[in-house]
Formats: sequence, C-alpha cells, structure tokens
Amino acid sequence: MPVKAGAAITITAFDWVPDFAKGQVRDLRVRWALEEVGQDYAVRCLRQGQQKEAAHRALQPFGQVPTYEEGDLTLFESGAIVWHIAERFPGLMPEDPVGRARSLEWLFAALNTLEPPIMDRSMATIFEATEPWSAPRLPGIDTRIEGRLKEASDRLGTAEWFTGRFSAGDLMMVSVLRIIEGEGLIEIFPNLADYVARGTERPAFQRALAAQMAGFTGKPPPGFDT
Amino acid sequence: MPVKAGAAITITAFDWVPDFAKGQVRDLRVRWALEEVGQDYAVRCLRQGQQKEAAHRALQPFGQVPTYEEGDLTLFESGAIVWHIAERFPGLMPEDPVGRARSLEWLFAALNTLEPPIMDRSMATIFEATEPWSAPRLPGIDTRIEGRLKEASDRLGTAEWFTGRFSAGDLMMVSVLRIIEGEGLIEIFPNLADYVARGTERPAFQRALAAQMAGFTGKPPPGFDT
Repeated sequence: MPVKAGAAITITAFDWVPDFAKGQVRDLRVRWALEEVGQDYAVRCLRQGQQKEAAHRALQPFGQVPTYEEGDLTLFESGAIVWHIAERFPGLMPEDPVGRARSLEWLFAALNTLEPPIMDRSMATIFEATEPWSAPRLPGIDTRIEGRLKEASDRLGTAEWFTGRFSAGDLMMVSVLRIIEGEGLIEIFPNLADYVARGTERPAFQRALAAQMAGFTGKPPPGFDT
Repeated sequence: MPVKAGAAITITAFDWVPDFAKGQVRDLRVRWALEEVGQDYAVRCLRQGQQKEAAHRALQPFGQVPTYEEGDLTLFESGAIVWHIAERFPGLMPEDPVGRARSLEWLFAALNTLEPPIMDRSMATIFEATEPWSAPRLPGIDTRIEGRLKEASDRLGTAEWFTGRFSAGDLMMVSVLRIIEGEGLIEIFPNLADYVARGTERPAFQRALAAQMAGFTGKPPPGFDT
C-alpha cells in the first residue's frame, strides 16, 4: 500500500462524503495512477468545508479535491494530475508518438465527451432529484449517454483497451464509465461492461479504492447525513 | 493566413452550421493554437451529416469535428489536439515544469470544471429551449456558472493570464468563457470580461475566427434552417 506519511508526493482527499460519493471522489483517479506507476503518496485529508477555505483554495481555486504536491510543483484537476503522473513516471504512457496520441485523446474523450452527460445524469438523479423536471428530463439524458456509449463500444470492438496497452487514457475512460455501472446503460454494451470490469479488477485500482474508502474516518458536518 | 492546401497538418471542420454555432465550433480552438505557433494547416470541410459516416468515424469515433492529421499521427478531441500542438511547436507552452503545470491544470479546468455548466446552459437555452423545464432550470444553472466564474475571477485577480505567459491553458479558458460572452454572467466580473477580451483581441484568434467563418460556404441540409 503506497499511502505513506512523509512520501515525496502529497495529495488531498476528504475525511467524509455522503454515501453516494464514496468510491467516486476524484482523488481515486489520482490514487489509481500512482498505484499503477508504483509511487508512494501521502494524503492530507480535509474535513467537509475545509476545501472552501483560503489555505486550500491557494492550491485549488475551485475548492475541490484532489490536488497534487511534489516539491515546488503543485497541480489541480484530476485530469491534469493523471497526465502529469503518466509523463513523470513510467508505466502509464506509451513511448511512441502514436501511442501517446491515443492515450491523450481518450483521456480528453473521457473528461469532455463522456463525463458531461454522465454528470448531467447525476445532477438529475441526485442533486435535482426533488425538482419537478428531474423525472421528465431523464430519458433524454439517458438517450444522449447511450449514444456516446454505443460509439465507444463500436470503437472498442473486441480490443482489450482503447489505447492499445493500458495507459492514462484507459484509466480515465474506466473511471468515468464506472460512475454509471449497474444503472442499466453500460450493460447494454457487453464489451464496454467487460472493459470496465477489466479496469476495476486491476490490483492497482483495487488498492486505490480501498485506500480512498479507508480514509473516510470523519463525521458528517452539521446539517448533513449519509 | 496559414490555411493552405497541401500543408503538413490537416484538420476537419464543417461547411455549414446553424447561426448559433458559427464562431463556436471547436475547430476554432485548434485553428487558434495553430495560428499562435505559426503553423500552416489544410482544412477538410465536411458537409453536415458527413461527420457521422464511417470514413470520418475512423478518425473520430464520436462523429465530431475537429480532427488533426500530420503524417502517421491522427488525433481527436480539441483539448488533446491543442495540448499536442503546444508540445509539438514552440509558443504555447512554458518551458519550466511549474509553468507547464499551470498550463496543464487550466486547460483541464476549462474543459472539465467550467465548460460542463456552460454547456448545460446551452442545452437549456438552445437544445431544450421548448421543453417545459427549460425556464425553471435556468436560474440554478446560472448560479452554478456564476459560482465558478467568481472562483476564476478571484484567482485571476489583476493578472493578465492564468498561466503567467499566455499558453495553451489560457487559450482554452478564453475559448470556453467566450461561449457565454454577452449573456450577463462573465460581465459580473470585470477582470474576467477584460481577460476574455484580451484573448479574443489577439491577432492569432482573429485570424482563426475569420478562417472558420470563411469556411461556411455550404448550405443547410434538408430539414435544417439557420
């Protein structure tokens, strides 16, 4: 387990989140990348609310986790951090220019083409669940997601990974697709469902997930419950 | 004007889009990057619908523009292409690791933190404009956007650019923020409004925008109008 106080790399995470977010907070993507490249990291756990305070905003202007610190270098945005880790340490980046291009394009496809409609679904089913438009909007959102999933499924075909060898692009594709695992959308496309399973069965993912879950030792702030 | 048939780099764009999309199609971001680094490029203009055909999907599995081709190398996703251009040619990437990190994180902040709520607004005001929930949803969307804009404005302060010297990160931040220029949101934060103006006044942006607009020589397909 590379979570290690005093490691050269420090990331930030939360000590508590609501149940629906456990296993989904984006520090998981960074932990996974660090596990894949075999780097120890320390975790600075924030209590809920602390991410909006000035000390954290100096690192992360939008008051989110994760952040990444290594010596003088700081980074925010999990996509940027994962790409940086893939560039910094061997194991997550093909060495040839074409392989590198595949990894880069699938990283962005995950974050800018697939994640927006998937997060829109979370908005409808979680944050706007009690609004009168939540239910009537959902079919249209699911149609948009299903369209993107079909396109991804068609491209993947019988391949193991989108980027040839597993790389930063696949790490992000799996991370985004698993948000809706079990919701009856990914499951329409067996090759995609298998792909997500192949990703989350990786020992590095399993260690990262266990580490995130083990970090939830805090209590809900006043006004929150699980 | 570096649009030049036979150039080593080829991108794809549309020969027609509805008026609301003119000046916003994402090949603009790639044209702008190529103008900043002074590279000629050829444009393969697709008629509407052609982006969904097999020949284009071989390059872009989601049936979108732009794509990028240079010799054996192909890329999709405008974020990936802009980052690749910044790595490939001097002019859009700080040379020191800290400057490079700033550029990387703001590129991702633009695409994964700011653009999703901004595109959600386009969804409500354009694509779902006739749905009964469009008007009641809008105030909540605008509150989310305004929150992100305030955080960006606070971070920018009196600086000229988010990334020190203008770089790929600023190119993408300006590209995303200008989607809602004139809608009364950016304008709440004068330093952000000035920032967007500073970006779009750059000669490279102006040339890129003119080139995109000049490419709209086609006609609407059956069933579409402007």
